[in-house]
Parts: sequence; structure tokens; C-alpha cells
Amino acid sequence: MTHNGLRVAFQGERGAYGEAAAIAFFGASVQFLPYSDFENVFGAVTDGQADRGVLPIENSLVGSIHRNYDLLLRQNLAIVGEIQLAIAHQLIALPGVTLADIKKIYSQPPALDQCMHSLTKLLPHAERVATYDTAGGVKMIKEQHIIDGAGLASERAAIIYGMNILQADMQDNAENYTRFVVVAREPVVPEGEAKTSIVFSMDNVPGSLFKSLAVFALRDIDLTKIESRPLQGKRWQYFFYIDFIASQHEERGRNALNHLQEITSYLKVLGSYPRGV
Amino acid sequence: MTHNGLRVAFQGERGAYGEAAAIAFFGASVQFLPYSDFENVFGAVTDGQADRGVLPIENSLVGSIHRNYDLLLRQNLAIVGEIQLAIAHQLIALPGVTLADIKKIYSQPPALDQCMHSLTKLLPHAERVATYDTAGGVKMIKEQHIIDGAGLASERAAIIYGMNILQADMQDNAENYTRFVVVAREPVVPEGEAKTSIVFSMDNVPGSLFKSLAVFALRDIDLTKIESRPLQGKRWQYFFYIDFIASQHEERGRNALNHLQEITSYLKVLGSYPRGV
Repeated sequence: MTHNGLRVAFQGERGAYGEAAAIAFFGASVQFLPYSDFENVFGAVTDGQADRGVLPIENSLVGSIHRNYDLLLRQNLAIVGEIQLAIAHQLIALPGVTLADIKKIYSQPPALDQCMHSLTKLLPHAERVATYDTAGGVKMIKEQHIIDGAGLASERAAIIYGMNILQADMQDNAENYTRFVVVAREPVVPEGEAKTSIVFSMDNVPGSLFKSLAVFALRDIDLTKIESRPLQGKRWQYFFYIDFIASQHEERGRNALNHLQEITSYLKVLGSYPRGV
Repeated sequence: MTHNGLRVAFQGERGAYGEAAAIAFFGASVQFLPYSDFENVFGAVTDGQADRGVLPIENSLVGSIHRNYDLLLRQNLAIVGEIQLAIAHQLIALPGVTLADIKKIYSQPPALDQCMHSLTKLLPHAERVATYDTAGGVKMIKEQHIIDGAGLASERAAIIYGMNILQADMQDNAENYTRFVVVAREPVVPEGEAKTSIVFSMDNVPGSLFKSLAVFALRDIDLTKIESRPLQGKRWQYFFYIDFIASQHEERGRNALNHLQEITSYLKVLGSYPRGV
């Protein structure tokens, strides 16, 4: 399948991890549209400014990105694909700048957090400045010619902005990967092995979660994610996020969803899509 | 029960949310010991420098704090209590400083993230500087007399450091609360309604999670949290975090745990403790 000319929205500047995820999924021949925040990515796809959006949904170190789950619940876009991306933060500065010059480190809060220990070890006195994007910090250092600053971003960001990697792989934990989802206005009917993401809530009677999982177990449908999240303002009620291996368009998956509908007070199918590798 | 003289470790400076959680649990007459990071809180309790530690374990907006789950898994401390704390970030500056003076905002990365939209609206051009603690940022502004900076921290931090609140309740989402756990070297036998936190993994055969939940459902034991987390380096295996309403010291809870032991490849009880309010 060729994606030539497809307009793909992501959060951050060129060289952001969202762009790398988009390239991994669509290849490099699509048109990449950077947006400042997740809301704008949703908005761009909803309005038709973009054909697809790419959004981080969970990270192996920090867990689910609830802000995007909330947007998936509120908005009416369908998940049509997923990408697992290894995250490796490079310490990036202007050519000629050395470690001894660095007084400030610019990056997105989660990236600063993920490099906390190695930053403390390498640059104990450097100020850590939060930017709205990892690559955005590198771009700013370049444009404003900040010679006492370094960014934490992908290797790709260093290449795009013609910058130098001062220190590679700054993340404290090597097992750092982010799962991105691809969203579109229209759902897809996946071929091959499919995954379906759903959100539901139910009245909190003991054993209710067990009943809801029976829906899948009785049909030998495997789960790849389950998470409870307290419903805002409702102390004893929860949302459940579940990913299962089946499509809503095949009989098994459709039956499971119909069965689940009977016992939940709220159910939203976020999308069925080909399982990522 | 009086806690006079008990030494309670938390992450951050005096006025941090961890300290507020400790006060909510123990009252104000204990000895508070601030530590720079979570590892040092664990270390202080393990070494006997502190009697208890207070650690954030999940937040309603950002989800589970996996760093502390990882420490609970690696270290041998028991959860002996829990606290739900409402989080409200105040914009705090030196007395006499006005909004128009602010060029820099100092706080911990998650707090900067939670106030992203209101900061953009209120102070679009201010630089956001990451500190290792919310209250620590306020302390630094005070000590270094930074007249163009403001911190994002609790009201208590403003009072402790004799600072002024420029703008109240900066968090983008009002429903922002954090659940803290209290850890100790020795487990407790809770009286009244008890909660137990466990972590387990199992071979990924379809329906295995369902079987593990049957252990609780068959005994009418209610769950208050469930979350799957991919095992590092093992793509198709997961850790499950579960909180259930029962104690490991009562028959029902003990039977459930014995039953769970039969079907899991790894099981760790993090602790049984009185359910928080």
C-alpha cells in the first residue's frame, strides 16, 4: 500500500518521536504536519486538515498517556493502526559546543524525567528547562543560537537541525519504548491479526470486572492490556481500558462486544486495527 | 494511636505534596525527613534512618507511578497505609513580585505538565524550569531571591517559605489527586476494612488473567485497581498490579493468595493495610 501524499499530523516539531513513529508506519513519502499539542492533532484530523494523526498512548516507563485516552473518549476518531517505537534520548548541542559549556538542558517534561539520574551525574549544575516538545527544544537552540544549552531528543532531531550529539542514550532505563496509535475519521477493517481497543465502565458490584473478562475468556480471546482508572468525580466507579486480539468486524470479536454491551453501563470501541510488531 | 517522634521520610523539600500526605496520615507531630529522590526514601527506611516512608503510587491524571512500583518490587519494604491527597498547584513568588515580572516558572516536570494549558494562557512567554521537587523550586526562589521567577507548588509551600500566591489552582484539570502509600520495614495486621496490594506475572496462555481474577471473584473479593504492564525485555509477558479489599491476614485473603500462588509464575504481596478514605 502506498501512502504518497497522505497528510499525517503529530505533536511536536520535525524530528519529534511522533514523527519517527509516523515514518515507521507510513514511510517517509507522506506529508508530515507538526502541531503544538495533542488536542490540535485531534482537531486537524477531525477538520480534514490532516488524513491521519499519530499519538502516543503508553510508554513502558511512565505507563498510559491518559490525556490521549481522554481525547479518544471525547472525540470521534477511530484507531486504525499502532506503532511500537524505541525511545533513546540524545544530548544534542550546536556544533563546537562541549559538555563543559552546557548550563541549560531543554526538553519535554517526560524526557527530562526519564533522564533524571544521568543528567544529575553528567551535568549536576545544569538548569533543566521544559519545552513543549523534545525536538522543539533542539530547534530553539539552533534558531536562537544558544551556545550554553543542550536538548534531549532523538538522533533524527540532531540530523534534521544539523546539530551535534554530545552524549548518546541519556535515558536512565534502556527499556524505554512508546506505543503510538494512528487515528483517522473512518475506521478500517483490518486484514490479518487484529487488535481492538475499548473503554468501558460498569456498576461497581463485586465480580463485575470478572464477568466482563468472561466475555473474552469464554471465546478464547487474548487480552494484551487491561487497566482500571477511577472515574472522575465518582469515587467507587472505574473506566477499564482493554486491548484484545480480535477484530470488531469478525464474528468472535463482534459477539464478545455484544455480550459486553449487555453488562456494561458504558462501552466505546476506539477501533480495530492490524496488530503492530 | 500517637505517632510522636516517628521519623517519616518523603521525597522533596518541606512543603512538598509528600509531606502533606504524611501530615494527613500521621498528624503534624512526627519528625519529617526530606530526601531528594524516591530511591533515598526507600534507602532511609531500609537502613533505619527513618521509621516510615511516604511515596506517591498513582495520580488520577497521569496514572501509576511505575518508578515506585519498580522500587517496591526490588526492595523489601511493606505497604502499611495509604492516603488520597488532592493536588492543587499554586503559582508562588516572592512578596511584591507581580505576574508581569515573571519570566521563569520553576517546578517538578509532572506539575509543569499538569499546568501546561493554564501556564500557556497566563504566561505564554515564561520559561519553564524543571526542579527535582515542587516545593524545592519555591525554596530556591526564596533562597536565591529570584525576583523574575515563580514556583508551582502547594499552598503549604507558600506558607512555609513566606511567599506569595500570585494565582491559585493552576492545574488544567480540577480532578487531580494522588494516592500515596506508607512503607515500613515490617508489615502490619490491619484492623477494620483492609486493602492488599500485589504484583504478579503468569505465563501468557489465553484466559490466564481470567483464571487469576477467578481467585478473587469466587470469594466475593472486590478489586479496586488492576493494571497490566509489559515485562521489560519480554514482549508477550506482563506484570499485573492488583489492589483488593481484604487482608492477607484474614482467611478469605489468605486463601485467595494461596490459590493465586498456584497459577502464577511470580507473586509478591506488597502489603495489607487499612483502606484509606
